[in-house]
Amino acid sequence: MLVLGLDPGLATTGYGLVAGDGRDMRYIAHGVFRTAANQPVAQRLMSLHDQLAELLARYRPDVAVVENLFFATNVRTAMNVGQARGVLLLTLAQAGLAIAEYTPLQIKQSVTGYGQADKIQVQQMVRILLNLAETPRPDDAADALAASICHHHSARMQTLLDEYRGKATT
Amino acid sequence: MLVLGLDPGLATTGYGLVAGDGRDMRYIAHGVFRTAANQPVAQRLMSLHDQLAELLARYRPDVAVVENLFFATNVRTAMNVGQARGVLLLTLAQAGLAIAEYTPLQIKQSVTGYGQADKIQVQQMVRILLNLAETPRPDDAADALAASICHHHSARMQTLLDEYRGKATT
Repeated sequence: MLVLGLDPGLATTGYGLVAGDGRDMRYIAHGVFRTAANQPVAQRLMSLHDQLAELLARYRPDVAVVENLFFATNVRTAMNVGQARGVLLLTLAQAGLAIAEYTPLQIKQSVTGYGQADKIQVQQMVRILLNLAETPRPDDAADALAASICHHHSARMQTLLDEYRGKATT
Repeated sequence: MLVLGLDPGLATTGYGLVAGDGRDMRYIAHGVFRTAANQPVAQRLMSLHDQLAELLARYRPDVAVVENLFFATNVRTAMNVGQARGVLLLTLAQAGLAIAEYTPLQIKQSVTGYGQADKIQVQQMVRILLNLAETPRPDDAADALAASICHHHSARMQTLLDEYRGKATT
């Protein structure tokens, strides 16, 4: 299962790709989609759409994870992030991808075992869990990898639970 | 010039089409795009995209007006409206449309001559200015028509100003 994590933003959207077989995870790629601040919002959203569509065509992930972002500090930020998030969700749906959503708390909990972990701790755990030589940069890409890891953990827990239930009934 | 006004929302997006020649305005159509509350957000955004794309293909407007919506009461509302607004802007940009943006204050000021006008006053003025037998329903569609009217007014003011300047220099 190839999982694409996305950390939505209008100026910078982080992405991270992590493959997994239900036991082990393997780092595939990470990076960011950037849009030019001097362009109209509609053009920036079109660029974001095109960059994601291109990534989907190149890597063909099985599922996408998009952070549930209701933590924004103010209404203007929420509106801008929302616009980017809407375009990302649309692009994923148009490509027929399954979409999973987790809150920042769920992702931190999953990656570090501690819901109140700070950004640095999350990034260190991402590096350790994916056997990377360095902490992935920038932050948005590291957050996107964390979202992918969270989904692999969640899928693995579900598999273990299913196996347990299967054994319990036999 | 055929102007499409849009009042963005995830559950309901209002639209209104008003034609004009720089002097007179003519009502063309109004209505709403609805999405099903029991569907995942990504599916609802895809439906919103498809409904707008279909409307653009049918009416081929020259310009679209989208309200600048930074008034939302809270972050969660702003995020949801933002997601819908982002998809609408993307769809307009993909169709190659020019996009104009006005704040709710500018639209009220333009339609009623009074920035603090209430919803009822705006709807009455929309009915009067477009010679409609009844107040357009629902509210979102009336607001979308008001946005179209605002752009026609703005374009007319610009034309008058250009004419004045042309005369002044001859």
